[in-house]
Formats: sequence, structure tokens, C-alpha cells
Amino acid sequence: LEKVAAIQFDRVIDIAKRRGIIFQSSEIYGGISGFFDFGPIGCLMKRKIVDSWREFFLTPEDRIYEMETCTIMPEQVLRASGHLKDFIDPATQCKGCNSIFRADNLIEESTGQFVEGMDPVELTRIISEKGVKCPKCGGELGPTRIFNLMLATNVGPVEGSIAYLRPETAQGIFVNFKNICGSTRAKLPFGVAQVGTSYRNEISPRQWLIRLREFRQMEIEMFINPKAEEPPQLRQFSHVKLPILTREAQAGGGQPIELSVEESLKVLPNKFLAYFMAKELLWYQQLGIPKGAIRFRHMNPNETPHYSKGNFDMEIRFDFGWKEIVGNAYRTDFDLKTHMANSGKDLTCLEGEEKVLPHVVEPSFGIDRTFYALLLYSYRDDGRGWEWFAFPPRIAPYLCAVFPLVSKDGLPERAEGIYKGLRSDFDATFDSSGSIGRRYARSDEIGIPYCITCDYQTLEDSTVTIRNRDDSSQVRTSVGDLPEVLGGLMRGDISFSAAGKPMK
Amino acid sequence: LEKVAAIQFDRVIDIAKRRGIIFQSSEIYGGISGFFDFGPIGCLMKRKIVDSWREFFLTPEDRIYEMETCTIMPEQVLRASGHLKDFIDPATQCKGCNSIFRADNLIEESTGQFVEGMDPVELTRIISEKGVKCPKCGGELGPTRIFNLMLATNVGPVEGSIAYLRPETAQGIFVNFKNICGSTRAKLPFGVAQVGTSYRNEISPRQWLIRLREFRQMEIEMFINPKAEEPPQLRQFSHVKLPILTREAQAGGGQPIELSVEESLKVLPNKFLAYFMAKELLWYQQLGIPKGAIRFRHMNPNETPHYSKGNFDMEIRFDFGWKEIVGNAYRTDFDLKTHMANSGKDLTCLEGEEKVLPHVVEPSFGIDRTFYALLLYSYRDDGRGWEWFAFPPRIAPYLCAVFPLVSKDGLPERAEGIYKGLRSDFDATFDSSGSIGRRYARSDEIGIPYCITCDYQTLEDSTVTIRNRDDSSQVRTSVGDLPEVLGGLMRGDISFSAAGKPMK
Repeated sequence: LEKVAAIQFDRVIDIAKRRGIIFQSSEIYGGISGFFDFGPIGCLMKRKIVDSWREFFLTPEDRIYEMETCTIMPEQVLRASGHLKDFIDPATQCKGCNSIFRADNLIEESTGQFVEGMDPVELTRIISEKGVKCPKCGGELGPTRIFNLMLATNVGPVEGSIAYLRPETAQGIFVNFKNICGSTRAKLPFGVAQVGTSYRNEISPRQWLIRLREFRQMEIEMFINPKAEEPPQLRQFSHVKLPILTREAQAGGGQPIELSVEESLKVLPNKFLAYFMAKELLWYQQLGIPKGAIRFRHMNPNETPHYSKGNFDMEIRFDFGWKEIVGNAYRTDFDLKTHMANSGKDLTCLEGEEKVLPHVVEPSFGIDRTFYALLLYSYRDDGRGWEWFAFPPRIAPYLCAVFPLVSKDGLPERAEGIYKGLRSDFDATFDSSGSIGRRYARSDEIGIPYCITCDYQTLEDSTVTIRNRDDSSQVRTSVGDLPEVLGGLMRGDISFSAAGKPMK
Repeated sequence: LEKVAAIQFDRVIDIAKRRGIIFQSSEIYGGISGFFDFGPIGCLMKRKIVDSWREFFLTPEDRIYEMETCTIMPEQVLRASGHLKDFIDPATQCKGCNSIFRADNLIEESTGQFVEGMDPVELTRIISEKGVKCPKCGGELGPTRIFNLMLATNVGPVEGSIAYLRPETAQGIFVNFKNICGSTRAKLPFGVAQVGTSYRNEISPRQWLIRLREFRQMEIEMFINPKAEEPPQLRQFSHVKLPILTREAQAGGGQPIELSVEESLKVLPNKFLAYFMAKELLWYQQLGIPKGAIRFRHMNPNETPHYSKGNFDMEIRFDFGWKEIVGNAYRTDFDLKTHMANSGKDLTCLEGEEKVLPHVVEPSFGIDRTFYALLLYSYRDDGRGWEWFAFPPRIAPYLCAVFPLVSKDGLPERAEGIYKGLRSDFDATFDSSGSIGRRYARSDEIGIPYCITCDYQTLEDSTVTIRNRDDSSQVRTSVGDLPEVLGGLMRGDISFSAAGKPMK
């Protein structure tokens, strides 16, 4: 953990750009801050992260359906959802250089005082009392005003009608609730998930992939009977210990306490939260985030979203400090109730004879932030300029790269044959250009776990070397055994040294 | 084909809504026209369509990389790309009821004259000469004006700066070209693909999933050396006959002519177009679109997009007529050249010693339109109220459904066990509610190819029935053989009657 704080994160950003993981969007035109693109390698990895999430969270037992709704939504929806009124940030403008800043962030950075959620009058007072100045020009700051974070557009010809780019994928699920119930015939509890893009017109985007204006989410809206006892699958996770940072601990500067799932039920506003929190902790550990870098923070009342009756956000310790990566909200019947009232449509469902307006528990995952954490915690450096990412095999862009030792004497052809034999079952890539050392280095930079090299001995006895990314050790194995060996390594069934005869 | 024209397409839209394939977006608030959501079943199918496309088009031999770029792009990008000036439609407003219409569509519908791409002065003249009136109130139509189809938004605090929702995914690829070359080290020819959402502020959205304001695309930008002979893989498709509707045939009201890939090279502006067109023809046939319902139309000069030196769009015959489903454009160096000039960045790449500005061939697939075609050509009706979708097994939301014959005597438990045994290898679903007939009907409505039913005999001899969606015929097979039988059926290796012992 201490190592993470010491990482030169600029190095990670540099590799990510140079190797096609993350590019600044529209960079050749200077871009707009808060927009990033996934390059060829990043795109492969993002797909694997989303697939891994689906496999882990959207199990048939959980009855979680997935849908894909539009990113543009009519004003009525976002008025009803409360976003028009409450999805806001406090902004202050410098009287000298006209730069605009988020007032709360400016105060926090300048005074260390945590003020998220305070009203504009209070913020203006603190800025004045503490003498907070413009960080760009040192000028005086104007009064704090409220700024809505939604991006607006006009749909339709000429005058058009106002619509918004969705601030969360969740609203697309809530307004479809009746259609979902009707078509799936699902009984409570059931969930609806969505993976997609959302938008926030951040006043000051920052920290690379952390605070973006266009970002990608994976959200689950779990619909439950408010009288429901607990999730049927909860007991499977009773062994998990949740590191929870209570409000009391935050007020006193204390540490998270470890609560068993059973114990956590007394603290959490809804038992389904415990279920998702336990799974989140396990999934992020699978991605390589150490348990000590994860905590669940009970949000204070003034920072809790307007729709939530309690948030226990999963935070990860980044190089710059702790930051939310999964929002866990107990949305109650807030959304369905307001959409029912505003649309005039009945959004209850039948539980036996009784009409029930379901409550909602929502874990909302930030894909971009997950990516940041993955890169941060996978980054390795041998201190002599050799850098690599220790991605888990299932998340790495490729499981293996196949190389000929040199580009002559039939080795490239032999290596390509091996590559073609592997690629239908494994994510494999092939590279024959440059020295073998350069190819190992390039492969390490995108975190390919295993390099398979075809050398002169291969021509004699059909064996190849497999090189382990994490310690550069090599073993020798026969070409015929490769599928079994790679499968075993990917599943973690065999250790690397058992994968063949160690060399040297 | 004649049958397609006779289909009551409202029936298809009704099933699609009722069964969770396609919902109108924000329907409970009346929605906005031109926005549709994928429901739980539609979302499953969309994923399979995209995966099938990736497998077919993004092969390692083609060296096509995939990326994912932002949907919001700065104004400079879209000014440089020509979209600010040329991505326009002619609009006319009724002087009576103030309704706004696309002038060219109105003329086409009212007079049968094809006027796409004509300038506003000509359109105004035709409306006046032919006496075209408002279709809503019969009022007089005002002069035709030009209307830009991009949706704008303001990014940043307070005043902000204008940005646009991308009108195509392609621009995100072009502005990243330098980063892509640098990170992949790819040599020409290579491609970059993107699957994602694009936006057009259509004047009058129509025809369900055809003309949308928010739509999903799968695009490939193939970067080639303008001196390149032909795609290396082209000869694999020399057996394919392309149905091409030439400009001459269109002018004379003629039919498409069948050209071999070899012959087509003389007609097409670039040989890479032939390669993609041949693959498109094959892929859409795999989806179940008959060859006779597909043609490649050489677009006339006035309807060819501003960036293209020639479009041969793949059209499908829908219930309402022929419509573009894949745009095949020879974009030349139009985009890279303009972005190079406007950004001041060098976008050439080295071919040996020579600096080359690549040319681009682009097949651009509409996902929503593909969905429409798939539903249309898969819809079946026995004339007595039994309706189903004959989806290809790989595209169907599930390959099989597992049912207990009745909900008692241990049959549900047995059926669930069989379902759990299958679901790790096959897309399977389980349903035990309602009569077996109702369950067969529901399963047919979402096009599940095979229903596996567990009955009293199952308890005795561990055999189950498999029911074939397309003719309701049944065979009996042992539970142990199911994985092999289902695998064979999915791959098409075995016929249904060979899958077991036919019954009755």
C-alpha cells in the first residue's frame, strides 16, 4: 500500500497512452478535459472487465436481467427523478481571471476542511473567512452559485424540446419498470442491470479517469419487497469480513472496522446492501486490488444523494487518496414513487394478492475508475527501467504472445503455426518484429502473462519456452501440451514452475 | 419475399414490446420519437449480433483493431470533418399548423419523384409546382430551409463551449489515427472498428427502428495504401456473386445485376469495397436474410455523403420497401487530410521510406436496422394465431429452455437439475410456471430454438423430449447426450430428426 503512494502515476499514464490502453479524446485538437477514449488494448480489457462483472454479479440465481436504454432522456424524466433540482455542484468564479472552480473542492484543498454537500451561502462564508483565493491567479473569488451537472440538448427540428444526457443509467431502468415486469414476469426480488455511458458536466474534471464528463457505468437496480427479510444467496457470503468506515469513525478520524456480513446487517439500512458489498469486496480482490486498499464508507447526510436513504460507498485507496469506486445506495421507493406520481402510470407489482411498490438497492460501478485502480495496483517496476502490469490472466488483453526467437530459418512460420493453433481457444497474439528482448518488453508493458517463444530447439523436438511476465523465469514445454498448460495457468490450477521443466 | 410485404408488421412490434425485445424509450412519459431501448431479451440478442459480427469481420488476418471513443466531440473535429456544413437535411414548415417535415421525403411520398440531395431552392420550386401540401392539415408549406442534423450541447461551467454528439463513430477513429499507429505499430492495410452509439437530430423519425435519433453502429475504417492492389483475403470470396444495382439500372428502373467479385472490381471505386460487400452478403444470409432481399445500390452523386468518393450501400427489402442497412463508402483520404490540415498534426504513416496518407474504405453497419431486418425475416405465423421467430440458433436469446411437464411430483426439481447442468456450456433458461402449452408459446415468441421437457418418463429412464421451434416436432434423447446433441444442433452438424428418436 505504501508503494502505491510512491508510484509515479505519470509513468502509468504514459504507458497507457503509448500502448493503446487510454487516449485523451480528440487529443490532436487539444481535446476537452474530462473525456478519454479506450484504445485497442484498453478496449479488449474493458470487454473482459465487463464480462467478468457479468459472470460474477448477474447470475441466474440473482435473477438480474440486463438491458440497454437510450442515453438521451426527456426533461420530464429528469425533473421527476429530482436531477433537475438536486444534481448540482457549487461553483465560484474568480473575479480576476474569470476561471470557474468547484467551491467545495477549493476549500478542501486550501483548508483541509471537508465541506461536500454544504449550501452555497455557507461555502461563500468559508471562502471569505479562510481567505481562499483563486489557485490560478490568486484573485478574489466571487459568491458560490449552484450549477446543474446535466448536459442538455435540443431534440427535434428548429426550436426542439429540451432533453438531457443521462446522469446515470438507472433512470432508463426505472421508467421501463412496467415493461420489464410485464415481459419477464419476474417476481420480487429481481434485478435489472445496465452497462453504458453517462454524463456529468463537471465544473473541473480531474485525476485522469476519476472525474470525467463522459463516463461508463455498470449499474444494478435490485427491486425488492420492502418487507423482504434478506437476499436468498446472502448466507453464501457469511465468511466475508466487510471493512466499514462508520460516520462516527469519520468524525473522530478513526479507521474502518471489520464487520462480518451478519454484524453489518445491524449497521446497514438494507440487508441487500450487505450482499452486494460482500461480492464487491471479492470481485475487486480478483482484479488484484488488495483488501487493505478497500473500504466501505458510510456517507454523511449532506453528501448522500438526494434519492438515497443511505450510501455505503466502496472506496479504493488511490495514489492521491481514497475515492469512491462503487456507489451503494438504498434508493427505497424514491424513484418508482416519483415516476408513478409524475407519469400517472401504475408501477406497483403484485405480490400474491397485494400491490407492492418495490424498494431499490443499487450498486453502481464506475468502469473508468475501476480501470484506474486496476492499472495502479497492477503496475510494477524493477527499479532499473523495466515496467510491467501484473494484470490477472482473465483481464489481461491477451493471455499469451507467440514469438519466433529470430526472424529467419523458418522460425516465424513455425511460431505462426503455433499461434494459429492456440488462438481459437485462447486470447493469443503474434509478433515477429524487433529483437526478442524488445518483444518481451512490449508484451510486459501491456501485461501479457505468458510469452511463448519458438527457437531452434523447437524445430528439433517441438518444445517451446514459456516466459512468466512477473519474474521473467522460463520453463520449457512441448507444443502439444500448450493448450492444457495454458488452460491450467489461466484457471490457476497449476503453478508456473509446474508448467514445464524450469530452465537455467 | 412476397410474404414479407404481407406481414402485419404491427404484430412484430407488439411481440417485441410484450416480450422485452424493444421498448419505446421513456414510454411512460410519452417518450420522444426516434428513441428505442433494448429490453432484457433484445439486449441478449444485440450482444450476440455484435459478437457474431466481430467474429466474422474482425479476424486477425484482417488486422482490424477495435476501440471505444467518446460520444461527445469538440466543435473543431466536426467542423473539420465537414459535418457542420454538410450534415444537413432540407426542412419545410407548414404555414397552417407549424408542423415541420423533411421536404425531400414529403415530395417523394406525394409525387413519387426521388429528390434526395437536391438543393433547397429546387425543392421549394417542386413543392410549389406540384402543389405538395402539409400531410397533417393540408396547409401551405413554407420555403425549404437547411437544418443541421447534429445534436449540440454545452460542455463546461456556465457559458461552456459548444460540442456535438457524434453523428458517426468514425470520427473518433480518425482523430486517434496517430495514437493508433503508434501504439499498434500496424502496417497498412489495417482497420479500426468501433461499436457504439451515434446521434442524428432527424426532422421526422419514422419506421420504428429505421430512422432514429439515437442509434447504434458497428463501423470499420479500413486504412489502405492508395496504391494497394487488393485486399490479401479477397480471393477467398471469389465465389460470391454480388447483386449490384448500378446507377444506369436505377435511372432506367432496372434490376440489380449479379457480378462476381472479380467483375465487380471494374465497377467499384476501390477493391477493398468488394471484399467487405462479399462478406456482408454472407453475414446477413447467416442471420437469415434471403439473398434475394439484399442488393448493393450505387448511390447517385447528389445522395453520396460529402466525404465519399462513391457509396455502394447494402440495402435490404423491408416491408415498406428497400432501405440502406450498411453504408459502404470509399472515403479516400478525405478525413485524415482535413484533420491533418486543421489540427496541424502529421497523420501520414511510413510505408518503407515513403510517407503515405492512407485512404479509407468504410463499411458502416446499422445495428438497429439489422435488428429490424432480423425480426422481419424471422417472423413466422401459422395462420391460426401461433407466432414465432425463426432466429438462427447463435442469435436467439437462448439456445434452449428447460421445462418440467407439470409443477409437481419432483419434475421441477429434476428439470432444474438438468438446466443447471447445461447452463455453463449453453445459453439455457428455465421456466416452470403455467401450462406446458403456454410455456412453448412463450418460448416460441422469443425464438428459442429448442425446448427440453422433463416428464414422468424422465424419472424412469433419464430421457427428455426436445421440441423443435420451427415445426413443433419432438424427439426423445437421454439427458446424458444433451450436451453433444445441443452442440451439434447449434453448429448445424446434425439434423433435428437425428437428434434423438422422433416421437408420435
